[in-house]
Amino acid sequence: MAVVTAEIISTGSEILKGFILDTNSHFLSLELQKSGILPQYFTVVGDDEKTLKDSLKLALRRSNLIIITGGLGPTDDDINREVIAEVLKKKLIFVEDAYKNIVSRFKKRGIKMPAINKKQAMIPESAIYLKNNWGTASAFIVEKNDKAIISLPGPPREMIPMFYHYVVKYLKKKFDTKERFFTRVIHTIGISESALNEALRDIIKKYKDVTFSFVAQFGKVDILIGIYISRDDSRIAHTKTSKQINRVEKEIEKLLGENIYGYDDETLEMVVGKLLLNKKLTIATAESCTGGLIANKITDVAGSSNYFIRGYVTYSNESKMQDLGVKEETIKKYGAVSKETAIEMASGARKKAQTDMAISTTGIAGPTGGTKEKPVGLVWFGLATKNELFAIRRNFLGERTYIKLQTAKTALDLVRRYLLGYKL
Amino acid sequence: MAVVTAEIISTGSEILKGFILDTNSHFLSLELQKSGILPQYFTVVGDDEKTLKDSLKLALRRSNLIIITGGLGPTDDDINREVIAEVLKKKLIFVEDAYKNIVSRFKKRGIKMPAINKKQAMIPESAIYLKNNWGTASAFIVEKNDKAIISLPGPPREMIPMFYHYVVKYLKKKFDTKERFFTRVIHTIGISESALNEALRDIIKKYKDVTFSFVAQFGKVDILIGIYISRDDSRIAHTKTSKQINRVEKEIEKLLGENIYGYDDETLEMVVGKLLLNKKLTIATAESCTGGLIANKITDVAGSSNYFIRGYVTYSNESKMQDLGVKEETIKKYGAVSKETAIEMASGARKKAQTDMAISTTGIAGPTGGTKEKPVGLVWFGLATKNELFAIRRNFLGERTYIKLQTAKTALDLVRRYLLGYKL
Repeated sequence: MAVVTAEIISTGSEILKGFILDTNSHFLSLELQKSGILPQYFTVVGDDEKTLKDSLKLALRRSNLIIITGGLGPTDDDINREVIAEVLKKKLIFVEDAYKNIVSRFKKRGIKMPAINKKQAMIPESAIYLKNNWGTASAFIVEKNDKAIISLPGPPREMIPMFYHYVVKYLKKKFDTKERFFTRVIHTIGISESALNEALRDIIKKYKDVTFSFVAQFGKVDILIGIYISRDDSRIAHTKTSKQINRVEKEIEKLLGENIYGYDDETLEMVVGKLLLNKKLTIATAESCTGGLIANKITDVAGSSNYFIRGYVTYSNESKMQDLGVKEETIKKYGAVSKETAIEMASGARKKAQTDMAISTTGIAGPTGGTKEKPVGLVWFGLATKNELFAIRRNFLGERTYIKLQTAKTALDLVRRYLLGYKL
Repeated sequence: MAVVTAEIISTGSEILKGFILDTNSHFLSLELQKSGILPQYFTVVGDDEKTLKDSLKLALRRSNLIIITGGLGPTDDDINREVIAEVLKKKLIFVEDAYKNIVSRFKKRGIKMPAINKKQAMIPESAIYLKNNWGTASAFIVEKNDKAIISLPGPPREMIPMFYHYVVKYLKKKFDTKERFFTRVIHTIGISESALNEALRDIIKKYKDVTFSFVAQFGKVDILIGIYISRDDSRIAHTKTSKQINRVEKEIEKLLGENIYGYDDETLEMVVGKLLLNKKLTIATAESCTGGLIANKITDVAGSSNYFIRGYVTYSNESKMQDLGVKEETIKKYGAVSKETAIEMASGARKKAQTDMAISTTGIAGPTGGTKEKPVGLVWFGLATKNELFAIRRNFLGERTYIKLQTAKTALDLVRRYLLGYKL
């Protein structure tokens, strides 16, 4: 079999009504890709017979592999086992072992088993029974010619271990693809989505076997590059990559240089943390408009107490003066949102905290407080080291929390660029 | 028109590949219900011409209303406007006003507009043009007989305001249903999901026409109550509710009391901010394990500079002593994570900032640093006012950022309970 066409169906009115997010599809897609399978569709349907039946029939026409989650509970609105059996024209059979499992789980919890739980021991005839060690819903796999329907419980705490325990092995046996889909994420900052796309146009044209996607979010842009690689190539560990992807990566690196800050699961604060650790440097923060967000991001990284010493959230002018030693005349003459104040904030924080460096932000997060000269979104950054002082100005668009987020990312990026020796 | 059949299509390889969650469908479903429309399907497809085309054709067969998000960016993988035009057999036309909007957004940011952004000014002929005041992607609505396709940008910070600005009004005009689905969200903190469910069992049994869901996340639990109400009943303002929901709400309030902190879109930091404003009180923060997250949450609220004066992120022992006046012997005798240190932190911050109150946190966020006596997840909170000092201890489970989040929510909740006069 060459390429497996796969799709994921999540059932449950709580998802369709918007009460909970469909995290199962998200998880399953990432895991399927490790088995070389990139799903083509996610579908969400409610606990409704007609729409579920239609979705299942459609999926059987267009896909080889269908993973359905949810609808295996004990209550009347749980109809997946019945609908799957009906669509495949199979009877439901009672699995003695499944029933024993349910009874024993209730016994362990010291609760009398309600009669309705008995139906959780039913699966379609000729299906492969998957014992649920994490709950009472029996799961199963039904095959039809070269196609397979895998029915798993909806709660992630049951679905995830069952996927690892049974499905990974099953996929390897049934869909032993010669090819697997490999994805690499390149994180960039400081260049817009459209400028990135223009810069990469020749590379995109050159590598026809590679897929490129651009995801702009929160002041940064991720480039996703994907490729089908052969099973041989994939014998190397999952985090490794194919030669072709390596080539593409090298070309992109040459083009974008310092605008790339990390790969795959790396965050900007992780990268900054590693740089500080390696260089044995310490840092302090002095925040006005970001209100603590930079310090919060830095301290999201485990072990950050090794390089992050302290932070100041100086929202009032008095706190800028008292905590950071910003001069009253500086604020009077230039304003709290100014190059001069930003520099004095960073410089003051560094001295107070006795760190190797400090970063500061002062700006107008909005929605009010903007003027023609100093509009909402204007931010001044200060960076102080032992021998140098920098100030950088940026204008951001968007609502308050988005301006805060872009400001925090930019501040971390300034520290990164400084530590790597790039011009600010 | 009686019942509108609706579905939501989210496009983007980043969702299908599992890099980001599809939060747009979630949002749109909740909002559509306010217009009386409960969607029947969510579909996720990649930036792929064939699967997008197939999904759109299928949607046109089975639904009256189709909302598509994503794929309106400037890059080559953004193909939604082209695919929608092709499926409907329409040409794409250039909208002068849209182009001006794009040019002006780049100008505001002081960046040269890349040529490829020009395609974001194209929409299918005869479509209703929706100007994007939040980004560069032009959105549009195309009608075909009694059906409508609404194409919106993917980034939530653009999609959400565009939905409120244009789509709500359009739906009211085009799909004026007799019934609407009404949802009310009650935010609770301080009581577990299962305890909530048990407490509400009798109410759930009593009101058979009302749906109840419980969503536990990030240290709080939301109760969602929903009901179909007639158009007459819904003529009252959107934030108002049906008599039946009012009755249910009253009963829940009687049961849960102070554990309810807000309704619908209210956040904990908004509620705390309102209380401080009304009582004309100011606050300061002194954070260790939360690393600035509390100050960040407080300053997410517009106008917070009226009550939030300053914050300290005292990660090192030295900063606790130097910035907050915590005694060296206190840290030596009791440790940095202790009742005594928490109290001295809060008290010191309040004096330094000259505020009416201050809240402090000191704990072990993990993953390392825990001991048998002081495990990962142990947090001490301090609350200082002019005349009183409180210390509260909590033990949280989970990984580092989740412990930080639970700690920040609990800190804000302590302030709320204090301000409302409840026992801490």
